[in-house]
Amino acid sequence: MNASIPPIRREMVEQARDYINQLTKPPGSLGRLEEVAAALAGMTGELLPRVTPPGVLVFAADHGVAEEGVSAYPAEVTAQMVYNFANGGAAINAFSRQIGALLQVIDVGVAVPIADERVIQKKVRPGTNNFAKTEAMTPSEAEQALYVGYEQAASIIEQGARTLIVGEMGIGNTTAASALLATLSEEPLERIVGKGSGIQEEMLAHKRDVIRRALLLHRPNPSKPVEWLSKIGGLEIAAMAGAMLAAAERRIPILLDGFICTVAALVARQFAGNVADYMIAGHRSEEPGHSIALRLLGKEPLLDLGLRLGEGSGAAVAFPLLVSATAMVNEMATFASAGVSTADAKGENGK
Amino acid sequence: MNASIPPIRREMVEQARDYINQLTKPPGSLGRLEEVAAALAGMTGELLPRVTPPGVLVFAADHGVAEEGVSAYPAEVTAQMVYNFANGGAAINAFSRQIGALLQVIDVGVAVPIADERVIQKKVRPGTNNFAKTEAMTPSEAEQALYVGYEQAASIIEQGARTLIVGEMGIGNTTAASALLATLSEEPLERIVGKGSGIQEEMLAHKRDVIRRALLLHRPNPSKPVEWLSKIGGLEIAAMAGAMLAAAERRIPILLDGFICTVAALVARQFAGNVADYMIAGHRSEEPGHSIALRLLGKEPLLDLGLRLGEGSGAAVAFPLLVSATAMVNEMATFASAGVSTADAKGENGK
Repeated sequence: MNASIPPIRREMVEQARDYINQLTKPPGSLGRLEEVAAALAGMTGELLPRVTPPGVLVFAADHGVAEEGVSAYPAEVTAQMVYNFANGGAAINAFSRQIGALLQVIDVGVAVPIADERVIQKKVRPGTNNFAKTEAMTPSEAEQALYVGYEQAASIIEQGARTLIVGEMGIGNTTAASALLATLSEEPLERIVGKGSGIQEEMLAHKRDVIRRALLLHRPNPSKPVEWLSKIGGLEIAAMAGAMLAAAERRIPILLDGFICTVAALVARQFAGNVADYMIAGHRSEEPGHSIALRLLGKEPLLDLGLRLGEGSGAAVAFPLLVSATAMVNEMATFASAGVSTADAKGENGK
Repeated sequence: MNASIPPIRREMVEQARDYINQLTKPPGSLGRLEEVAAALAGMTGELLPRVTPPGVLVFAADHGVAEEGVSAYPAEVTAQMVYNFANGGAAINAFSRQIGALLQVIDVGVAVPIADERVIQKKVRPGTNNFAKTEAMTPSEAEQALYVGYEQAASIIEQGARTLIVGEMGIGNTTAASALLATLSEEPLERIVGKGSGIQEEMLAHKRDVIRRALLLHRPNPSKPVEWLSKIGGLEIAAMAGAMLAAAERRIPILLDGFICTVAALVARQFAGNVADYMIAGHRSEEPGHSIALRLLGKEPLLDLGLRLGEGSGAAVAFPLLVSATAMVNEMATFASAGVSTADAKGENGK
């Protein structure tokens, strides 16, 4: 996967900052919203960017490693939740409706056939192999999964999406994401691996052991990212990374969800270093590895509400903050246009 | 001001928690949104509450203490910003449009006449007296300002508002709010008093001195809240408190903005102890006194984005989180209705 991502327009960031300081409010008084608006100007190249409608892509796939007993939920929940997405009953459906998102659900590797035309069929293979025992998939399959994501993102942007949110469903995917993160981070597995959808302390120790064993088996090397992905998986993580690369190529801001999504962002960065310049972190998940992944990515999240659901749900919940940031620059009057006096000379009026 | 506020329906909080655990997501995985949804059920008495449309009341008034040179902005900015609100160019206008709010701007005490029919005329008096030298207003005027707020909230709720947001505009009002808070809190003025709209370090010391002098002069007693308000002001803070009392009487949730608003919430609590049961804190302001006020009120805010603008803007920016919380309970499928397997017995599935 080769991605050619344009540099951020830094001069637009500066122009936006200057403009934001002319709006009828004490300079800096809208805090992070001001930073977000300036960052969006740099990404989009527009002083007055728009972020609606957002496009939400939910990639679903199964993980062979689920057979090790690493999740609180049985593997069939992946397919069951895909039908729930199709029927509009999941959290990401409710939040996507709230934010007026274009929502697409893509089967990139669910273990069983999905018989629902509302789900986009792009199955690369029916689930990965158990990466604790063998390679999750072939390098060619990892490439295919990356392209599924790339093409879906290109397509939803073509349909009008001005922000990209990527979500996932895949029982066992915090295990794969933790293994990927462990090869990038100096942190011990004790700090990286968390309870995912909610396992007990005993299962958590087992989950760590499974990952430790797999890493010894594969010795995965992130600097060869296709091989790295093929060894660990998963298909939906590869697709998410591919989708992010397509968005950044098109100067479309990417609003990150939680742990899995942020690991996918780190995967994308192994393909193109500057893809992260197009990312905003939506929230900080309860999953401990998420803070580590965010730190590696150099991102400070907007929300910290103890979310740990995935599906893109936390990014969708954070999205209205991007709308607020853009409403600020698009709609507020300036001191000059509104005839409002600026700060007294004796006021600090800035920091 | 006598307010008769019904107790929260605690059995609805419990029912809501049980119901939220049946939705298709790992229990607890939507974090604070789950707590908010349960709290809203207790406030409204409805298992599946709705919070839209919100009603936003912005009360504007001047403060005599501004003549002491405690603000980065000249006092005429209060009136200038009222016209900006009327013309739709302020931050609260942009955010109110974003959230589909009913927005009303009320002159409860601007120093100069406001010649704009889009501003509701309820001026109790043209600004307060300088409370560093004398009482800000009479007890009767404080009562009148409380009733202006009470009646405006009753009216906007009558018009359909299902959440109340109260904001303010008043050059000098962080000085009054800091003085009110100082009489309720054990904290020294050094921790309470902040830079407001953005003053320099030297002005900050002066602002503290002005407050210290005023407190020695008045020895205000919060347990006599009308007298307390009359000594310090301001008219808009009294109106905000009155509005909150009206909302809580009607089981309408109150979404708090920043420092001034949270001090007004503490004022409201001096009139009716359980009014705080109907409040959700929208955000944590940069103003240092805000964290102290939130702690006294026993509230943990939803957002922490370095906002410090006022006008109700931070609450409006936080409002979509209440929409997400209610979308969750109103729109998500249950495990049973969606045919999704629940957690394995070996999973912890809860915390």
